[in-house]
Amino acid sequence: MQKIESVKNDQIKKINKLKQKKYRQQEGQYLLEGWHVIKEVLVNRPEDVELILTVPDHLAELRPFLKANSGAVIEINERVATVLSDTVHTDGIFAVAQLPGFSDETLLNHENKPWLVLDQVQDPGNAGTMVRTADAAGFAGVIFSAGAIDPFNSKVVRSMQGSQFHLVVAQVADLNHFLEMQRQQNYRIFGTLVDNQATDIRQITLSDQRYLLMMGNEAHGLSSELATIADDNLYLPIFGQAESLNVAIAAAVLMYQLQMQADL
Amino acid sequence: MQKIESVKNDQIKKINKLKQKKYRQQEGQYLLEGWHVIKEVLVNRPEDVELILTVPDHLAELRPFLKANSGAVIEINERVATVLSDTVHTDGIFAVAQLPGFSDETLLNHENKPWLVLDQVQDPGNAGTMVRTADAAGFAGVIFSAGAIDPFNSKVVRSMQGSQFHLVVAQVADLNHFLEMQRQQNYRIFGTLVDNQATDIRQITLSDQRYLLMMGNEAHGLSSELATIADDNLYLPIFGQAESLNVAIAAAVLMYQLQMQADL
Repeated sequence: MQKIESVKNDQIKKINKLKQKKYRQQEGQYLLEGWHVIKEVLVNRPEDVELILTVPDHLAELRPFLKANSGAVIEINERVATVLSDTVHTDGIFAVAQLPGFSDETLLNHENKPWLVLDQVQDPGNAGTMVRTADAAGFAGVIFSAGAIDPFNSKVVRSMQGSQFHLVVAQVADLNHFLEMQRQQNYRIFGTLVDNQATDIRQITLSDQRYLLMMGNEAHGLSSELATIADDNLYLPIFGQAESLNVAIAAAVLMYQLQMQADL
Repeated sequence: MQKIESVKNDQIKKINKLKQKKYRQQEGQYLLEGWHVIKEVLVNRPEDVELILTVPDHLAELRPFLKANSGAVIEINERVATVLSDTVHTDGIFAVAQLPGFSDETLLNHENKPWLVLDQVQDPGNAGTMVRTADAAGFAGVIFSAGAIDPFNSKVVRSMQGSQFHLVVAQVADLNHFLEMQRQQNYRIFGTLVDNQATDIRQITLSDQRYLLMMGNEAHGLSSELATIADDNLYLPIFGQAESLNVAIAAAVLMYQLQMQADL
C-alpha cells in the first residue's frame, strides 16, 4: 500500500485543490471526508471512488467495504489528514470521488417521484440539509440552479451526509429547460412565497407524486420569474409571531406535508 | 450621550463577559447583537433593555423605537463594536437585556397552546432554529432541560432571531416537575423516537392544542426515561434512504404536522 507522510506531496496538493470549484470541474472529482460518508459511497457507488486516503486506524474497518472497482487505498498520517480536512476534528479518512454526471435522460424516469429545485440558495448548510431531507422524504432528486451554491462544495457535502448517493443531485445550466421537461411529464410545479396571498399548503390535494417544489434564495425568496411559471405558489401559515422560517425548515415542512398527502 | 471609544473601557470589558454563561447568570443579563433583534426587543419588551450600544450609523433609525423605560444609549466606535461582536461582519448595534425570569405561574396558562421541550440538545444553531420554528408554529414556549445548551448562549440567541420576545424560553432545573404540571392541565405528552415501532405521526389526531413535544439529543435521541414518561412516542416516516433527519428539521415537521391537525 502506498504511504504519504509529507504534506508537501504533489498528490496531496492536487487533492487539496478539489476544495475549489474550478478544480472540481476541471478534474470532474470532489473530496469526501469522514467514515460515515466513505462507507455510504462504498456501499452505494463504489465505482465512483477514485482513491481512498486514510490514517492507519480505519484500515481494518475499511477492508470489508472495498470492492474491485473502488480505487486504491493510500495510507496517510495525522499531519496529512489535518491538511486535507475541512473540520476541526477530523477522523482522518478521505476519498476522491467522481462528480456524478447527468443528462436529460437521467433527470427523467424516477418512478414518478417528486423533485426539489433550489434556485439561488446560497448557504451551504441550508443546501446540504435540504438534500438530506429530500432523501428522507423520498424525492427523486435535488436540482440546483446555475446561480445557487455548488452542490459539491465541501460544506454542502458535509451536510448532505451521503444523501448524494441515494438521489440525484445536479446543478443545471438551464433551469427552465428542466422545468419544461418535467411539465411535459405532467409534473405539477409548486413555487413557495412568504405571502398569505399565495396558496395555503393545507389547501393542496395531490393524487400522486408527480410534482416539483421550488425554494428560493434565503433573503429574497423565489424569483418573480419562477413564481410566474409555477402552477401554484405555496405558503406555510405562520401561527405565531415569527416573521419567517429558515428556508431549510420551510422546505422540510412542505416536502413532508406534500408527501404525506400524495397517498404514499 | 455617553461615548465609549476604548476597547479597554471597564464597562465594555464587563459587557463582554456576558458571553460566558457564568456571568450571564451572575448578572441576570445577556447580550443582543444586530438591528433586527434590537428592534424586536424594543417593540416587544422595552422594559427588558438595560443599555443600548451603537455606532453612530444607527442613531437616527433607533430614535423612534426608544421608550422611557428602554435604558440608556451609549455611542461606540467600530473598534469597540468589533470587540463586542460575535459575528464576522457586525452591524455595530448591541443591547444588554435582562434574562427573562419565570416561575411555575408563567409556565402555565398560555391559552392552552403547545410546548416544545428540548432535552439535552447541544447544538446552538439547532436550538435557536427550533425556538424560531416554535414561534412560527404558534407554540406557548420552548423549555430547555438542565442538560441542554444555555438558551441565552450568543449563538442560540443569534439563531432565535428575536423569537425569545414572542414566546416563553426557559431552562428549567427540574424537567419532570414541568411535565407533571402540564399533565395536570390535561396536556398530552409526545416523545420522539427514530424507530418505526413508535407511533407514525400520521396516526395522531388532536382535538385541541394541549400537548407538548419532546425532542432529544442530536446523537442519542430522547432519553429512555423521557420516552417512558411520554403518552405516545412519535416518529416521522422515512420514505427514502436517509438514516435520519436533523433534529431541528424533525421538530419542524412534527410541530407543523401537529398544529395543522389541532384544528387551528
